[in-house]
Amino acid sequence: MEVARSIAEMRAIVKDWRKSDQRVSLVPTMGALHEGHLSLVHKGKERTDKSIVSIFVNPAQFAPHEDFNTYPREEERDFAALRHANVDLVYAPDVKEIYPENHHTKVEVQGISQLLEGQFRPQFFIGVATVVAKLLVQVMPDVALFGEKDYQQLCVIRAMARDLDIPVDVLGGETIRESDGLAMSSRNAYLTNAERTLAPRLYQEITAIAEQVSAGADIDQVCAAASKGLSESGFKAIDYIVVKDADTLEDPTPGRPMRVLAAAWLGRTRLIDNIAVPA
Amino acid sequence: MEVARSIAEMRAIVKDWRKSDQRVSLVPTMGALHEGHLSLVHKGKERTDKSIVSIFVNPAQFAPHEDFNTYPREEERDFAALRHANVDLVYAPDVKEIYPENHHTKVEVQGISQLLEGQFRPQFFIGVATVVAKLLVQVMPDVALFGEKDYQQLCVIRAMARDLDIPVDVLGGETIRESDGLAMSSRNAYLTNAERTLAPRLYQEITAIAEQVSAGADIDQVCAAASKGLSESGFKAIDYIVVKDADTLEDPTPGRPMRVLAAAWLGRTRLIDNIAVPA
Repeated sequence: MEVARSIAEMRAIVKDWRKSDQRVSLVPTMGALHEGHLSLVHKGKERTDKSIVSIFVNPAQFAPHEDFNTYPREEERDFAALRHANVDLVYAPDVKEIYPENHHTKVEVQGISQLLEGQFRPQFFIGVATVVAKLLVQVMPDVALFGEKDYQQLCVIRAMARDLDIPVDVLGGETIRESDGLAMSSRNAYLTNAERTLAPRLYQEITAIAEQVSAGADIDQVCAAASKGLSESGFKAIDYIVVKDADTLEDPTPGRPMRVLAAAWLGRTRLIDNIAVPA
Repeated sequence: MEVARSIAEMRAIVKDWRKSDQRVSLVPTMGALHEGHLSLVHKGKERTDKSIVSIFVNPAQFAPHEDFNTYPREEERDFAALRHANVDLVYAPDVKEIYPENHHTKVEVQGISQLLEGQFRPQFFIGVATVVAKLLVQVMPDVALFGEKDYQQLCVIRAMARDLDIPVDVLGGETIRESDGLAMSSRNAYLTNAERTLAPRLYQEITAIAEQVSAGADIDQVCAAASKGLSESGFKAIDYIVVKDADTLEDPTPGRPMRVLAAAWLGRTRLIDNIAVPA
């Protein structure tokens, strides 16, 4: 497994692969890897000859009061997991390589970035769209993979790559869950034992919503009940728990696929999750 | 000379060139070509094996009250000029190819986009940065060329390409002038005969400023005198006539290169021009 710390090193390796027409997949990550990330790596490896994982904790997607400084960084553990997964190249640039001092460009997907997560984290998707645009243009992979756990992020990235005409196939990977249903996330490490016991309740509530809405129940009523249930069970604040159009994330319209999406706080940890409404 | 109307057609042609490792230059234009554009074509041809000119009147860089609908469109004349210049490929997509209905992404270079032109045309550089990012990612040329006549635009595009890590050499081309000094511009076609006679005065004033500042004169004084001279000679409004740092376009600091930049109205036509202050 090769490790590149700079754009130039990474590009030299990819250029070499391209000489023999090898296809390349990229899984952009912020490290602290779990089975969710590794499932994306495997999905990429099935589709391409060479597999790249980038590890970069992107300061541009954290607000000043958020957890940039405390976000888990476990490079040696991550490298071992990626070696085990037969990744060909880890691309792990530092902040100055991605954002030199005179960096002033931002990429914004209007509309969808302002909904849901965008209401609570106004700069978040600008930070995500900018860094992913940069990583895609840097690597120019054939396939790039992102987890469905960050469902709105996947929608924003798909739109950005399409709008900027980046010739890449953006693929989503199914959310990987702990045995009790909690969606795997690097931020689960922040949970106390008591919070960890409560955490799967979020998945239970969105699963219940999906089933009830699929059976014809009133969306507002089931979402209100789920929200109440979460609050009573110990969730501190429910940022949103909603059913939206699965593509636009706007209010659902008859006959189109729907998605349940939720964000809620357990103590100082913000959890998000989502699930499809069965057709 | 080949003509491509779609991204896919254009990419197929470029891909074919790339098989034999040919280097490619791109001159993005809005058509209504003049000697300024053609000088960029020639500069590109000196540096690469294949030469592309794009023609696309970009709606995103016009404000609603501006001249998008009346901007000169002369495709047959342009094609003839490009054929004569031995251009290999004209890429002339229509608006829907570049901005399909669901297009929502914007690229913004913060800081420099807000100065000078950005004060008078607030969305202009977002429109420019977005379309040029798209064109560069679509074509992926080795060299892209832009006229120094739109000096701030050149600075914005350089910053955008660098920040988004687009592997392209962005080159500026010297402003080409009519025999009386007026900078060539597609918008000069809007001038009445009387205005056309007055127009070179803008170049005369910025040249005088450059010489005087180079000789040690006070910047504010010479700019104020030039502004007064333009007004008295018949220019309707002076948006700005300033001396700035040649790279940042911020106020000049001792020992760094400077540029004189001006924008002023003759009747209903807005002229811009700029010139280096001799070191």
